[in-house]
Amino acid sequence: MTEDKKLTNALSRRNFLKTAGGAAAVAGLATSGLALTPWTAEAACTTMPKKWDETYDVVVIGSGFAGLAAAYEAKKAGASVVILEKMRTPGGNSIINGGVVSAAGSPLQEKEGIKDSPKLLLKDMLAAGLNLNHIELARMVANESNNTVQWTISELGVKYKDRTTQEGGHSVPRMYTTYNSSGSAIVQQQLAKLKELGLEPKTQSCLTQIYRDADGRVKGVQIREKYVFPNADSGKIKNIKARKAVVMASGGFGNDVAFRTIQDPRLTDEFQSTNQPGSTAEALREAFRIGCTPLQLSWIQLGPWTSPDEKGMGIGPTFAGGCTMYGLWIDPRTGKRFVNELADRKIRADAIINAGNNCIAFTDARGYAIFKQFLGEPLMLKMQERGVVKKYDTLEQMAAAYNCPVEPLKATIDKWNKAVLAGKDEEWGRYLQKDQKPLGAGPYYVSRLSPKVHHCMGGVNINAQAQALDVMTDKPIAGLYAAGEVTGGVHGAVRLGSCATLDCLIFGRIAGKNAAAEKKWS
Amino acid sequence: MTEDKKLTNALSRRNFLKTAGGAAAVAGLATSGLALTPWTAEAACTTMPKKWDETYDVVVIGSGFAGLAAAYEAKKAGASVVILEKMRTPGGNSIINGGVVSAAGSPLQEKEGIKDSPKLLLKDMLAAGLNLNHIELARMVANESNNTVQWTISELGVKYKDRTTQEGGHSVPRMYTTYNSSGSAIVQQQLAKLKELGLEPKTQSCLTQIYRDADGRVKGVQIREKYVFPNADSGKIKNIKARKAVVMASGGFGNDVAFRTIQDPRLTDEFQSTNQPGSTAEALREAFRIGCTPLQLSWIQLGPWTSPDEKGMGIGPTFAGGCTMYGLWIDPRTGKRFVNELADRKIRADAIINAGNNCIAFTDARGYAIFKQFLGEPLMLKMQERGVVKKYDTLEQMAAAYNCPVEPLKATIDKWNKAVLAGKDEEWGRYLQKDQKPLGAGPYYVSRLSPKVHHCMGGVNINAQAQALDVMTDKPIAGLYAAGEVTGGVHGAVRLGSCATLDCLIFGRIAGKNAAAEKKWS
Repeated sequence: MTEDKKLTNALSRRNFLKTAGGAAAVAGLATSGLALTPWTAEAACTTMPKKWDETYDVVVIGSGFAGLAAAYEAKKAGASVVILEKMRTPGGNSIINGGVVSAAGSPLQEKEGIKDSPKLLLKDMLAAGLNLNHIELARMVANESNNTVQWTISELGVKYKDRTTQEGGHSVPRMYTTYNSSGSAIVQQQLAKLKELGLEPKTQSCLTQIYRDADGRVKGVQIREKYVFPNADSGKIKNIKARKAVVMASGGFGNDVAFRTIQDPRLTDEFQSTNQPGSTAEALREAFRIGCTPLQLSWIQLGPWTSPDEKGMGIGPTFAGGCTMYGLWIDPRTGKRFVNELADRKIRADAIINAGNNCIAFTDARGYAIFKQFLGEPLMLKMQERGVVKKYDTLEQMAAAYNCPVEPLKATIDKWNKAVLAGKDEEWGRYLQKDQKPLGAGPYYVSRLSPKVHHCMGGVNINAQAQALDVMTDKPIAGLYAAGEVTGGVHGAVRLGSCATLDCLIFGRIAGKNAAAEKKWS
Repeated sequence: MTEDKKLTNALSRRNFLKTAGGAAAVAGLATSGLALTPWTAEAACTTMPKKWDETYDVVVIGSGFAGLAAAYEAKKAGASVVILEKMRTPGGNSIINGGVVSAAGSPLQEKEGIKDSPKLLLKDMLAAGLNLNHIELARMVANESNNTVQWTISELGVKYKDRTTQEGGHSVPRMYTTYNSSGSAIVQQQLAKLKELGLEPKTQSCLTQIYRDADGRVKGVQIREKYVFPNADSGKIKNIKARKAVVMASGGFGNDVAFRTIQDPRLTDEFQSTNQPGSTAEALREAFRIGCTPLQLSWIQLGPWTSPDEKGMGIGPTFAGGCTMYGLWIDPRTGKRFVNELADRKIRADAIINAGNNCIAFTDARGYAIFKQFLGEPLMLKMQERGVVKKYDTLEQMAAAYNCPVEPLKATIDKWNKAVLAGKDEEWGRYLQKDQKPLGAGPYYVSRLSPKVHHCMGGVNINAQAQALDVMTDKPIAGLYAAGEVTGGVHGAVRLGSCATLDCLIFGRIAGKNAAAEKKWS
C-alpha cells in the first residue's frame, strides 16, 4: 500500500468526514514546506530612501565580539566598512563578559594532561542544548574552538592565564581565561586591531530600519546618529547604503522585559539581568519585520552564579564559579548540596530557584588561596568590600549567618571529602579537578546565589555561512548576514558557558569574510 | 544611590572600558522595549492588488474549530463572511481530534461528586505549561471552559457521553467526550449551523499572501482557488478584500518537517505526526512576513499515547488513554512502570523515548469492559483487527510477546493493586479514579506506545481580544485577528489534553465577534 493510501485509510477508518484524498494526502510532500510567496514577486519591506547619506561596502550593526570580528575580516578583505553601535561606548555585552573561551584539544590542556576533542565539546553542547542545537552550527563552534582561541592570541594578541578552568556542563576543564578575567581583554584587542586598519565604531548610532527592497535584497539601513539610549526620538535620521551587505551583530534581548516576557512570561522585571542596558530587542524585531526567520526565542538563560548583593553581572560570578571547582553550593535550609555544581546553567539556575532562590557558594582557605592566585588579590578584596563575598572564621559562624543547620552542613562536607578521597562524587557526579583536595580549614568565604537573565539562545535563523534565512523560503536573504547572540540555533535550549565568545568570533568572522566577497548591487 | 548610578558603578568597578553613563544607563527605561519603526511611517508589506476579485466583511483562513467558530459569530453579527480552506474537505485537525473538551465545574462533575474549579484548571495548565503561558489567555480558557462546553450543547447541539474522563496533567476528571469520541461531532455541528446561515467553507482555497497596506492595516488576502495540496502552483490566483478584518485560524505546523526542524531539530521525518497532511507552516510564515510577532515556536508537543502500529493519530490513543485510568504503562525492558500515566504529555513522551521508545499500555478484562462500554465494541474490535491492540489470555503470554520479564511485571501489578487498595499511588502519584479497582483477571489487552508530533504550542502573539500583535510595537495589527493553534501563549510549554478545543472555540468566537464589530476601511 502506498503511503498516501495508508494515510487516507487511517483517516477514513474513523467515524468522520474524510479529510484528504488522492494526491493531496501525500504526507511526504506535505512536509517539505511550501514557499508560496517568493520575494521576487513582492513589495519592499521598506520604502527605499530618496538619497543615501553615506555609502559603505559592509555595514555592521553592533560592536561586540561578533560585530568587531565581522568588521575586521571585511576590512582586511579590502571592503569599506562602518560599525554602528547604539550605545555611548563600544563592546556591548562582550566587554562585560567573563573572559572565558573554550578550546577543545588545546596546548594548555596538553600541558595539563587533559584529554579532550571537538567531538567531546560538541557532545557537551548538544547535551546542554537538549539537542535543540542546529548541529551544523554547533559543530562549527566545536571544531573551530581551539583554532579560534589560538587566533585571538596570534592575530589579536589577546593574553590568557596559564591554566584551564571549567564551567558547568563541560566534561573537562577546557576554558582559557583572559588575563583580566573579562571579555574586555578581547574586545580591546579587536578595537586596537581595527584602529590600525583605520576603523573605529560609530557610537550612538542606533539602527531604526533595515532597507529591504522589492527584489528581496537588503540595501542599507536607517539609523539615528547622536542617539542617546534609550530615547527613541533622540539623534538625527541618516540613511546608510550597504553596497555589499549588512551584518547584524546586535546581540540579545536579556534586558528587554517587554520582549523577553512575550517569550518567557516568568522573566518579569523581578529578575535582574547580567546584561548591559542596551541589550534590547528592537534590532531583532526589525530583522523579523523584514523577513528573518525566528527560532527558539523562548529559551532564555539565567546565569546561576550571580549574587543578589550586587547589581547586574557584578563580580561575584567568578567566585561562585570557583566554588564549582574548589568549594560547594549549599541549600542553607538543609545544609546539603542540591545540584551538581558543574551541571549546565539551566539545571543549576532551576535548582537554585527551586531551593528557595537563596543558596550559597562557599570555599575554604585553600580554595580562597587558589582564587587569589588566579583572579588577583584586588578583585578578591573588592568582592568582600562590596559585601558580595563574606568571610567567616568557623563553619559555625558561617552556618549561623545563613540560618543553616550546622550539623547537616558538616555532614555534607564530610561526605564530599570522602568523595574527593575516593576519586568519585557518587552523589551528584561532579567532575573532580586534578588538584582536588578535601575541604579543610577556614576561614570560609561565601557568596549568595540568585539567578539573573543572562543569554538569549534564540534569534534569527542562519546557515553555516552566517547568511540570514528568509522566513518564507528558508533561503538566504541577499545582502544580509547575522552572527552572535542575535542568531539562534548554535546553543539549542541551553548555552554552555565559554561558548558564546566562540560563537560570536567564529560566525562574526565568517559573516565579515562573506560580506566582503559579495558583489556590489550598485 | 540611584539605580543608574548603581549600575554604572557596578560596571565601572570592573577592569575594563565603561559601557554606559548618565541617562543612557537607566535600566528601567531600557526594559520597556523600543518601538522605533511605527507602521504608519512604513512601506506596505505587500503591493495592494489592482483589483479585488471578491469582497467580504470578514475573511476567515482555516476551517477547524477556531475558523468555524469565528465565522459563526461574525455571520451571526451580520457580517458577510468567507471561510477559506486549502484542503479538499473542511475541518483541519479538529475533525480528526479526539473529541474531548475540559469543563471545570461542570454539571457532569457535580453528578459524579468531583470537586473542580476554573482556578484548579488554570493551575494545571500553568504547571504543564511550565509557567510559560500567557496567563490572561490561559485564564480565559479556564474561566470559559464550562460555559463553552455548555454552549456547544445548547447552541450547536453537540452530543456528549454521560461521564467525565481524565487526561494527563489534569488534577481531576473533567473531560466531556463527544458521542463518537471525535472532534468531528463538534465540527459537523459547526458546519451544519453555518449552513443554516447560508455559509459553507470554500475548500481548495489556499492563502498565498496577506495584504498589509502602507497604513499598517490588513486589507485582504491573495489565494489560489482550486488549489490541490501540496502543489504550490496549482489553482488560480484570486484577490479577496476584507472590508473589516482577516481572521487567521490556519492551525499548526506539526506536519511541516522543514519548519518544525528549524524550531526543534530533533523532530525530523523519523517522527510521524498525528496531524492531517495540511498542517504545514506557510500561512504562519506569511503572518510573520507581514509583521506578526513570533513566540514559543520551539515548544512542539508529542502525543505520548500513539501507536507505532498504525499511521498518524490512528485509533490507538483512546485505548492507551484508557489505560492511564484503568491500566498501567510499562517499560517492557524492566516490567516496571516508568512514569505517572496521568502526567502531562511532555513528561510522558520524554519518559517513553528515554525508555527506549518501545513501551506498552495494558489493561485487564474489567478495564476492557469499561472501554467497550465507553467507546463502543466496534471501535474496540477495529483496534484489534488493525493490530494496534493485542489480546493475551495470560500475563505470561503478554510478557513473552514484548520480551518483558514476567516476575517483575507481576510485582509491578501487585504494587499497584496495593496502592489502589490503600487509596494512594505512593510510587508515581497518579490520581485514582472513583471506581478504581485492583487489576485482576485476563484476558489482557495491550498497545505499544511511540510518541508522534501532535501540537504546536507556539505561533503568533495575540491579546485577549484575539488581535494579532505587531512585532515592532506589540500593538494590534489593524484588521487582523488570530485564534487556535496558529497562535501561541495559551498553553505555554506543554498543552494539556482537552484544552485545545477550548482555546480554538473561545478565541475563535472572540475573533469573529470583534472582526464583525470593526469599522469598514472601504
